[in-house]
Amino acid sequence: MKVIEFSELGNPADVLKLKERPSRAPGADEVRVRILATPIHPANLLQIAGQYAATPQLPDIPGGEGIAEVLEVGDGVEHIRPGQKVLLAGAGGSWRDELTAPAGAFIPAPDGDVEQLSMLVVNPLTAHLLLSAFRELNDGDWIIQSAANSAVGEMVVQLAAKRGIRTVNIVRRESQVEHLKTIGGDVVLTDGPDLSERVTAATGGAPVLLALDSVAGATFERLLGTLAYGATIVSYGVLSGQMPQLNLQSMIANGIHVRGFWLAKWFETATAEDRQAAFSVLMPLIASGQVKTRVDSRFPLEEIRQAVIRASESGRDGKVLLMPGAS
Amino acid sequence: MKVIEFSELGNPADVLKLKERPSRAPGADEVRVRILATPIHPANLLQIAGQYAATPQLPDIPGGEGIAEVLEVGDGVEHIRPGQKVLLAGAGGSWRDELTAPAGAFIPAPDGDVEQLSMLVVNPLTAHLLLSAFRELNDGDWIIQSAANSAVGEMVVQLAAKRGIRTVNIVRRESQVEHLKTIGGDVVLTDGPDLSERVTAATGGAPVLLALDSVAGATFERLLGTLAYGATIVSYGVLSGQMPQLNLQSMIANGIHVRGFWLAKWFETATAEDRQAAFSVLMPLIASGQVKTRVDSRFPLEEIRQAVIRASESGRDGKVLLMPGAS
Repeated sequence: MKVIEFSELGNPADVLKLKERPSRAPGADEVRVRILATPIHPANLLQIAGQYAATPQLPDIPGGEGIAEVLEVGDGVEHIRPGQKVLLAGAGGSWRDELTAPAGAFIPAPDGDVEQLSMLVVNPLTAHLLLSAFRELNDGDWIIQSAANSAVGEMVVQLAAKRGIRTVNIVRRESQVEHLKTIGGDVVLTDGPDLSERVTAATGGAPVLLALDSVAGATFERLLGTLAYGATIVSYGVLSGQMPQLNLQSMIANGIHVRGFWLAKWFETATAEDRQAAFSVLMPLIASGQVKTRVDSRFPLEEIRQAVIRASESGRDGKVLLMPGAS
Repeated sequence: MKVIEFSELGNPADVLKLKERPSRAPGADEVRVRILATPIHPANLLQIAGQYAATPQLPDIPGGEGIAEVLEVGDGVEHIRPGQKVLLAGAGGSWRDELTAPAGAFIPAPDGDVEQLSMLVVNPLTAHLLLSAFRELNDGDWIIQSAANSAVGEMVVQLAAKRGIRTVNIVRRESQVEHLKTIGGDVVLTDGPDLSERVTAATGGAPVLLALDSVAGATFERLLGTLAYGATIVSYGVLSGQMPQLNLQSMIANGIHVRGFWLAKWFETATAEDRQAAFSVLMPLIASGQVKTRVDSRFPLEEIRQAVIRASESGRDGKVLLMPGAS
């Protein structure tokens, strides 16, 4: 089998190597799969460069999610059968064409859009949980989010639109406005001064009940200023690298809830029922293409260098996918 | 009847005047009471000086809570009878010896410690709600609080001890440590660097589930650093006047909840059941003297100038009470 490996931290285009490794038959309670598609996420590139919270043990195989076809199952495996499609969740090291791992590392997947399903477990799941785990939202309610043109942000727009939840989407550049409106964003505004007044004007003064922020710094402070009494702001990233000043007087007067969200912790603490509930909502929407993550380009494992270079370019128009099964 | 009045904002010792006003018989659904005891709170003095959020309409009578004896009830009043003791909650202007107001402005009070009951509606109620409205706490759980030697802080210590909840109490000066231990504080530490390490040492590394902060600024940041995964920090004041930097990375990684509490908003939004539940827990504890607010001194209305001067002194050892019924 083929794997992508790095033995030193550094520029992904330089340190990633394609290697041949022997296949391994599944032991008891294990499954062997052929990986069909696996995305390149910014966090993968940061980790290879040694710039992410958790430093990998070297040598390491990157990749955190993907979709695969089951080739073979070991003794004791009952809920997964050869030929079936499964998602990889938590096995790690998905940038390869074959993987043998415990059955618990795979989630049975429906038929449907293989590329879209390969990206479900990170960004769409985050978007779904941001919209469902912090605040009850009903048809017609308003929320606001920063970095609305990120992969999570675009998924939030689409999932919210499906539920009749109205979104105020904050972006950095005017050029990002049109696409967000096309996929269902109700209001799209550029970040900057007077945000609160511009939001009020755009929503007709409707109460904004939930803010989703991955930028931090002054953007977090401005989002806080747009919220209704008793609203919640959820922080799930620090893209600006800046910490906000927390205006406690305004927070106390407005009864604001501030929360944090980290997908890795959710996987650690979620019950089987929590996971089942989340996937049963998301799977049909993703498999049928009703909500979509944009795909910029696809590469075989042999072209890993070109793939990670493309994934680092700012002009990109969606995710870069590795397609090991096609090589 | 006698009232304390101010017609201009300024130093309370200068602008407060004792005035004679005609009594008024209760109309339909009204009650006339004789006020027995009413406290001087820092917020009252700030409001008289024009330094509080809400600027009063002049002339105004200060005072936000107290205990009274019912003298007379108007037509239609059924749950309150002459001779009964009642707490003043929300009628405003309690620094007087007599008051006629709608029956809804009074809460029937049990027999018991009149002075302690006169101070129930502001600080003990805040302490009770901080301990009960944000986080489920069980026997043996640990919480942490700043400004532990404030009136709210000392009430938190006593109410927590009654429930078997263990408290880490943060104070500014070493001289405040002993008294807090006497009233039931499990751990008392002075604020400053390495707070997190000192808390861990003192609690044996037990998870701290709730932080209560009225200082803000760096103290808020340090309290945040002492909390367990999934813990809550409630801000209910900004004594330092400084806003904290919110460390979102740590907040996200630790699943922290940040909340604000403001008693005035609670009164606006609480249901009759919420109020009933809170008072039914607090009333017996306060009336029986099982938990206590320290009283520094007592003054008749005629000595209002001396009373507010004493209430402004830092060497004070508890609350200053006005005792109109005794004058």
